Amino acid sequence: MNIQDKIKALRELQSRMSAYEHAMSLIYYDGATTAPKGTAENRGHALAILSEETYKMATGGETVRLLEELDAVRDTLSDEDSRMVYLMYKDIKELKKIPLEEYVAYQELLVRADDVWHRAKESSDFESFRPVLEEIFAAEKRFAAYCAPEKKPYDYCLDKYEPGLTTEKCDEFFSALKERIVPLIAKIAEKEQIDDTCIHGKFDLGAQRDFSLKLMKHMGIDLECCGLGETEHPFTTSIGSHRDVRITTNYSEDDFTSSMYSVIHEGGHALYDMNSKDSYAYTVLDGGISMGIHESQSRFYENLLGRSRKYIESIFPIIRECFPEETVNTTPENLYRAVNRVSPSLIRVEADEVTYCLHVMVRYELEKRIMSGELEVKDLPIEWNRLYKEYLGVDVPDDRRGVLQDSHWSGGGIGYFPSYALGSAYGAHILSKMKNDIDVDTCLANGDFAAINNWNREKIWSHGRMLPPDKLLTSVLGEEFDPKYYLDYLEEKYSELYGLN
Amino acid sequence: MNIQDKIKALRELQSRMSAYEHAMSLIYYDGATTAPKGTAENRGHALAILSEETYKMATGGETVRLLEELDAVRDTLSDEDSRMVYLMYKDIKELKKIPLEEYVAYQELLVRADDVWHRAKESSDFESFRPVLEEIFAAEKRFAAYCAPEKKPYDYCLDKYEPGLTTEKCDEFFSALKERIVPLIAKIAEKEQIDDTCIHGKFDLGAQRDFSLKLMKHMGIDLECCGLGETEHPFTTSIGSHRDVRITTNYSEDDFTSSMYSVIHEGGHALYDMNSKDSYAYTVLDGGISMGIHESQSRFYENLLGRSRKYIESIFPIIRECFPEETVNTTPENLYRAVNRVSPSLIRVEADEVTYCLHVMVRYELEKRIMSGELEVKDLPIEWNRLYKEYLGVDVPDDRRGVLQDSHWSGGGIGYFPSYALGSAYGAHILSKMKNDIDVDTCLANGDFAAINNWNREKIWSHGRMLPPDKLLTSVLGEEFDPKYYLDYLEEKYSELYGLN
Repeated sequence: MNIQDKIKALRELQSRMSAYEHAMSLIYYDGATTAPKGTAENRGHALAILSEETYKMATGGETVRLLEELDAVRDTLSDEDSRMVYLMYKDIKELKKIPLEEYVAYQELLVRADDVWHRAKESSDFESFRPVLEEIFAAEKRFAAYCAPEKKPYDYCLDKYEPGLTTEKCDEFFSALKERIVPLIAKIAEKEQIDDTCIHGKFDLGAQRDFSLKLMKHMGIDLECCGLGETEHPFTTSIGSHRDVRITTNYSEDDFTSSMYSVIHEGGHALYDMNSKDSYAYTVLDGGISMGIHESQSRFYENLLGRSRKYIESIFPIIRECFPEETVNTTPENLYRAVNRVSPSLIRVEADEVTYCLHVMVRYELEKRIMSGELEVKDLPIEWNRLYKEYLGVDVPDDRRGVLQDSHWSGGGIGYFPSYALGSAYGAHILSKMKNDIDVDTCLANGDFAAINNWNREKIWSHGRMLPPDKLLTSVLGEEFDPKYYLDYLEEKYSELYGLN
Repeated sequence: MNIQDKIKALRELQSRMSAYEHAMSLIYYDGATTAPKGTAENRGHALAILSEETYKMATGGETVRLLEELDAVRDTLSDEDSRMVYLMYKDIKELKKIPLEEYVAYQELLVRADDVWHRAKESSDFESFRPVLEEIFAAEKRFAAYCAPEKKPYDYCLDKYEPGLTTEKCDEFFSALKERIVPLIAKIAEKEQIDDTCIHGKFDLGAQRDFSLKLMKHMGIDLECCGLGETEHPFTTSIGSHRDVRITTNYSEDDFTSSMYSVIHEGGHALYDMNSKDSYAYTVLDGGISMGIHESQSRFYENLLGRSRKYIESIFPIIRECFPEETVNTTPENLYRAVNRVSPSLIRVEADEVTYCLHVMVRYELEKRIMSGELEVKDLPIEWNRLYKEYLGVDVPDDRRGVLQDSHWSGGGIGYFPSYALGSAYGAHILSKMKNDIDVDTCLANGDFAAINNWNREKIWSHGRMLPPDKLLTSVLGEEFDPKYYLDYLEEKYSELYGLN
């Protein structure tokens, strides 16, 4: 085979693997949204087999040889082909280090764990979840030892979600945040609290569902290629390629902004996923490059845009239309203030922007200590509750609103959480650059996302996985990432809101 | 390999193939229920690849050799293993005759056709559907020539849904039906029509959704393993095994019985699918043996039970609970009469029991003539409308309520329709036997399906695909199937209802 034939073979392999990814993402999505409750085992059977097939396809001699040969001539390939070879070879070299049986057993474990977690959360019973969570952490430790024995086990986890991220960098980043966020929270606590009664009441679920679709359309999501589902925990997934993306939300009858901000958050993920260069479909270049960059987009739409005064003013008529009676006494300004109320609380996904990163730090601390062996899974609830008291000053009343609240651990997502904080900070730095090119406030005031989305598409989304996260970020920012933009943003916004200084 | 190892290998192969079936059924189900509208092409990409993989797995040299070797010693195998070998070998010998490229292209065509059909039906535009339908019929003709050159092409189609069925047998069966049904309809037409205003009105969709779940529970369906979706055209599918089954329905706001009888019909399919012997999961023995037997179960629950006086009496309190205001003036007897109103109409799935088979015969005639080359696809609407006038005396106002109403053709289901009529007649014969063992009326009056379901489970469902349909039927009936039971049932029931004789 000459090089062009090899590239063709590699593209065919990626296309074939994308069909398996399509199937597996859909089985997962179905399991979380519509599958009957008693079908997890059946789903596990299929996923185990399909993941075995992909493992074999990826690590088979033919594939490895192809990649070895192409890797040797990588500097002669086009940028896209070269990146394709790099990404695949890197993943596959790592995957080969995990024995097939362990890999398959882990996929089955995750299906089981998802089911167990749902039931455990419902009954607020950590003990029933503990055994599978122990298995998950044990597997992660083994995988870390197989794949990256030279690293701290937790660094292996972090790198999966944000290539290049380490415990050291995280510690530094979080300590920079703490230094300015903790005093900010203290100052806010001294001030009169914002009245947020306008977001509470009884909001019909049918009206909330309609509202979700309107929100998605308003932010420029093409509903022909993006679906909306309902799950215990909101998430976004693409099905096989960027041409089919699904987001989910979770409705709270007594607060319409709970789902509203989930929809905008997941909508940000969806926009990123849906806007890869079209020719990247069915290749490894399709989709987002890291979870940090991903969260920079989701938290950008959710907070930097979605919790801004101008956005609230432009979305307000739609809110009035969907909930006419419930919002009869609400003004845009009241609503703006209510959705920005700062108050240490229990649930991460509902947390305000200022305290949000403390929720992330709790999880980061716990994961780090479990992966290093300092902490045992059985002690998670006690430690969780202790850290919530220490960091946020709140008492956790039960595990449902504590250690069982997130779906990440049951899904094997250890090392994911820091992405939320990183992404939030990336986003603020990105916004400062966007404002040099675009009058963001006017776009928001007009409810016109075209210019904003075009900017993100050109600078970030369309690149798919072509650039590593640090390079992508530097290319967007024109300088090194710096969390100070985020901290400046928080201080400025909340000083105005709470009348600080 | 000794025989036991070969059997083990064969079981492993079936287990592997069931994972692909899981994926493909789910992709299909998702496409029909929740996938965003613009994602058909993306879905087609995945299905083409997955069907190519299954084709290769099934027809690969290793598989064929294994089956050849096991087929040679079939009489030494257990009944179940022997049947497994027989079913797989038969299917695979046939599949091998279809070239891979054509097989894969056909799977892609069906995804495209489903999308085109949905849009064509919405706009009542046959012309936009015509090209894909021509491709589908052309493919069926080619497949018939490859797989069964010795047969009439349409007999190849019929045999796929009801092994052993032929045009000749169908002609005979339908003429037996016509002979007694046509005069029955004429007699009914002379009588005063039943007032069915009680089923019309405005029925909240949320209440109808709740009602569907109550109906499923009432008929003994385990909701832990059976889901409910909404589609343009109701259907049932199992996902990978009998341990996960999904039914769908379609709600009409102005008639709650439209979805009610779809749910009971699909619920009958679901009960059959869900109750295969548990050890048949992930083997070819799992599921229903033919569509005729399948429809004997769905139409059994829908009509023989679901449109009986006793059933209506027992379900009535649930109806009142779900639609308290809308049914305030309804009595069980009024409702019983309304759901059994005989009136030639346009839509098959909403047709009464008496005229139902005429709807089927229209489709049978048309399929038979297209497959023999007598009729062209482009002339389908004209012929459809002519036959509806001839058989049912109704004028078809548009293609949406005419030739575009069913999803079968867009799904490649040519030769399926006769199963509905056969199944209806099988069901009546089966009921006559069940009544020898069980007091069916008392069970229905008590809303207690346990004895009925146990009887069906023991006699039919649990056998999965162990027996061919004719043998299964004879074993249940203790004699050859005879449509006279069905015709007797219709005459008796409707004579009483309409005061004939």
